[in-house]
Amino acid sequence: MRNKSKNSFHSDMKNNLLEVPQGFLFAAGEAGLRTHGSGPDVALMVSTVPARVAALFTTNRVKAAPVLISQEHWKRSRRIAQAIVVNAGNANCATGRAGLRAARQSAEAAGKLLDVRREQVLVASTGVIGVPLDARRITAQLPALARRLHPEGYEAVSRAILTTDTRPKVAGKSLPIGGRRVRILGMAKGAGMIYPRLATMLAFFFTDAAVEPRFLQSAARRMCDSSFNRISVDGDTSTNDTVFLMANGVAGNPAIGKQGVTAEKFLEALDEVAQELAIALVRDGEGARKLAEIRVEGAASAKQADAIARSIALSSLVKTALAGGDPNWGRILSAVGNAGVAFDPNRVNIFLNGTRVCRRGGAVDFDEAALQRELQARDLQAKDILLRVQMGQGTAAARFWTCDFTEEYVRINASYRT
Amino acid sequence: MRNKSKNSFHSDMKNNLLEVPQGFLFAAGEAGLRTHGSGPDVALMVSTVPARVAALFTTNRVKAAPVLISQEHWKRSRRIAQAIVVNAGNANCATGRAGLRAARQSAEAAGKLLDVRREQVLVASTGVIGVPLDARRITAQLPALARRLHPEGYEAVSRAILTTDTRPKVAGKSLPIGGRRVRILGMAKGAGMIYPRLATMLAFFFTDAAVEPRFLQSAARRMCDSSFNRISVDGDTSTNDTVFLMANGVAGNPAIGKQGVTAEKFLEALDEVAQELAIALVRDGEGARKLAEIRVEGAASAKQADAIARSIALSSLVKTALAGGDPNWGRILSAVGNAGVAFDPNRVNIFLNGTRVCRRGGAVDFDEAALQRELQARDLQAKDILLRVQMGQGTAAARFWTCDFTEEYVRINASYRT
Repeated sequence: MRNKSKNSFHSDMKNNLLEVPQGFLFAAGEAGLRTHGSGPDVALMVSTVPARVAALFTTNRVKAAPVLISQEHWKRSRRIAQAIVVNAGNANCATGRAGLRAARQSAEAAGKLLDVRREQVLVASTGVIGVPLDARRITAQLPALARRLHPEGYEAVSRAILTTDTRPKVAGKSLPIGGRRVRILGMAKGAGMIYPRLATMLAFFFTDAAVEPRFLQSAARRMCDSSFNRISVDGDTSTNDTVFLMANGVAGNPAIGKQGVTAEKFLEALDEVAQELAIALVRDGEGARKLAEIRVEGAASAKQADAIARSIALSSLVKTALAGGDPNWGRILSAVGNAGVAFDPNRVNIFLNGTRVCRRGGAVDFDEAALQRELQARDLQAKDILLRVQMGQGTAAARFWTCDFTEEYVRINASYRT
Repeated sequence: MRNKSKNSFHSDMKNNLLEVPQGFLFAAGEAGLRTHGSGPDVALMVSTVPARVAALFTTNRVKAAPVLISQEHWKRSRRIAQAIVVNAGNANCATGRAGLRAARQSAEAAGKLLDVRREQVLVASTGVIGVPLDARRITAQLPALARRLHPEGYEAVSRAILTTDTRPKVAGKSLPIGGRRVRILGMAKGAGMIYPRLATMLAFFFTDAAVEPRFLQSAARRMCDSSFNRISVDGDTSTNDTVFLMANGVAGNPAIGKQGVTAEKFLEALDEVAQELAIALVRDGEGARKLAEIRVEGAASAKQADAIARSIALSSLVKTALAGGDPNWGRILSAVGNAGVAFDPNRVNIFLNGTRVCRRGGAVDFDEAALQRELQARDLQAKDILLRVQMGQGTAAARFWTCDFTEEYVRINASYRT
C-alpha cells in the first residue's frame, strides 16, 4: 500500500490542481449552527443548468429530516436538481414535524433565490441529533451565498461541512470522453458513525459529463460499493448519510450509457475519486492515527471474502492492536473465525506489511521487535498498515479499509454531547 | 435495576455462604503459564462419581485445541465426565497438531491419576493465542492438585482461571427438589472478547441434582440464552469459549426431566446463577466502569426486540456516551435504527434511569445536568445504568447487558500482546 500512497489523499494535497467541472458553482458561509466553536457551517452548491442526480441515502431506519425531504424532492423532480443546501452543526434529526418544515424551508428559500423549483433543491445536514434546527439561520445566509457562488468555492464548502473531521476531503479527476474533456469532483466529510452502508457521511460528486439517467444511478451505487461501503471507523451507521452525484452534461460529450465504450472508463474514474475520499475519511476517523488496508485473498467466494474483511475491520481487538502496533495475529485469526464463513484454519496465512506473521493457522518465526517498531512508526508514510489474509480456499478477494481504535476515539465520544 | 442490585454479584460477595454441591472437589495450582506476573493458573475439578455433562462451545470457526479435544471426549464418552482440567495464561489456540497433543496429554494424565477413562476428562484453556503450550507444565502439577482436592477448593479455582479479569466470579443457589436439597454452583471468567454466542469466557456449573441427560443439555442451552448470550463487552467471540454443566445426581432426588413439575424450578435456579455470573462478567469487562442493562419493550416480536437490544449494546457510540455519563439519546435512537428492524421512530420513547430523555422519537424537557450527574456517579450502586426503550409497536421485550467503553479498554488492548 505504501507505494500507492502517492495516489492517496493527504492533508497537504494541492487542491488547487483540481479541475472544477464546468457549470458548477459553490459558496460557504457562517450561520452560527455549531454548538462548539464557530466557523463556516452552511453551503450552497449549484449547477448552472438542470443536472441529473444520482442519490444514495442512509440505511438507518431513523432518517433525518433532510434525508426524507431530499428523497421526496428527488422523486418528484424525476431525479433532476440544480442546487444542494447543506449545513453542519445540526443534523436536523429526531426533530419531528418542525424538522421537516425546516428542511423544506431551506430548499424553498434556495429555490426562490435561484429561480428553480423547490423540488430541484436537495438538502443535507450533519451535526448533533435531537436539537431543533432554526431554518431562518440558514435562509438568512442564502442571499449572501448566492452572490458569492464561484467555481473555486468548492474548497470553502469542503471545510464548511466538517464536524469532528480534522481536515477537508476533496478529490477529482478529469478524462477525455468522446472527444471532450470530462471532469469529476468529489468532496466528503466523516468522521464518526462511519460504517459500510454509508456513514455519518455526506459526500457530493459533481461531473460535467453527460450521463444517461439510469446509468448514473447504477454508477453511483457501484462507486459507493467499492468505496464508502468498504470502510469502517466505528461500525455505526448514521441517520444522515447522503451521497449525491450531479451530472450536468456541460462538457458536451455524447451521453455515457451502459452500452457505450466509455462507460467503463467513466466508472473507473468515479471509483478512483470515491475511493480516494473513502480512504481519506478513514485516515481522518475520530482519534485515528493509522490507516489499515485489509486484503483478503484466496476466499471461496466474493461474498465470503467480503464477510471476512469486514469481520477483521470491525473487530475492536484488531483495531486496538493496530493502535498499539502489536503484530497480534491471533486476534486477526480469531476475527476471521467470527465472520460466519466455514474454512480450514490450517490453510490460512496472515501478512502484516509483507511480513508473514501466521503460517497455516499457526505461529511462524519472524522478527517481532522489528515489525512492532515498523507498525508503531509515526511518520505519515509508514503509518499505513497492510493486513493481508490468504485463505487458501479459492480465488476470490476483497479489500476494506479501517483505522486503529485509540484512547482518543473514546475521549472524543465520551465527552459530553459531541 | 438498582433495587435488584442485592441479587447482583459484587466483588465483596460472601462466597463462603455458598453451598457446594455434594460430590464435587476442586484444587488449583501454579504451572508458570502466565506471561505477565505469576499466580495460580491451573485447576482440577472432579466429580466423585461419573456425572452427566452438558456442554456449549464457541461458535468461532477457529476453535482452540482444548475445544476440539473436549468436543471429541464429550461425544465419545456419551456426555459423561468425571473431571475438568483448566488452565489460564495460554489459550492453546492456533498451535496445530502439537496443541491437540498437549490438550490430549493433559486429559490423559488426569485420567490416569484419577483412574477414569481419558474420554471422561474435559479440558479448557484461556490466555494468549498462538503460543505453544507445554503440557508437561500442567501434568507436572496434577498429582499435587489431586492431593489437594477439596469441596471448598472452588474458590481457588475461580481465581486460577482469570486472565484480564480483576476479580473472581462465583455464584450459587440451593433449592428443594423432590424432598431433597439440590445445589448449583457456577463460576466464570471474562473479560475481553465478550459477545453473544459465548465469549472469551469459560464457565463451569456443578450440581448434585439428578437430571435426565437430554434435559440437561437443553437446560444448559436455555441457561446460556438468557445469560451469556445476552451480554457484550467488545463484540468479539473468542476461540476458546466453553460452558460445562456437570450434574452428578449425588443429591438423590428423582431425576429432573422435561415432564417433571420440578423442571421449571430447576431451570429458574440455573438461569439465576448464570445471569448473576453473566452480569458479573460485564461489570468486570476490560476497562468497564459502568454496567448498563438494556430493556427493549413494546417491540413487534421477540426477535425484533432482541435485535434492537443487541444493536444498542454493541454501538461504540452508545458505549462511549455511557463512559462519559452523557444522556445522548440521539445515539441510542440511531442504534435502534441500525438494528435492521422496520418501525415508526415517532412512537419511540427512551428512558435513562427512569428519566424520559426521548418522547415520540424527539427531544423532551428533562433536567440534563441532574441526569448527567447521576450517570457520572462513581459509587458502586449508582454506577448501574438502566436504559429502557419503548418501541410502541407490540408487546415483545428483551434484556441485554453491556458496559461502558472507556479509554482504559483501549489501553489494555493496545498494549503489546496482552
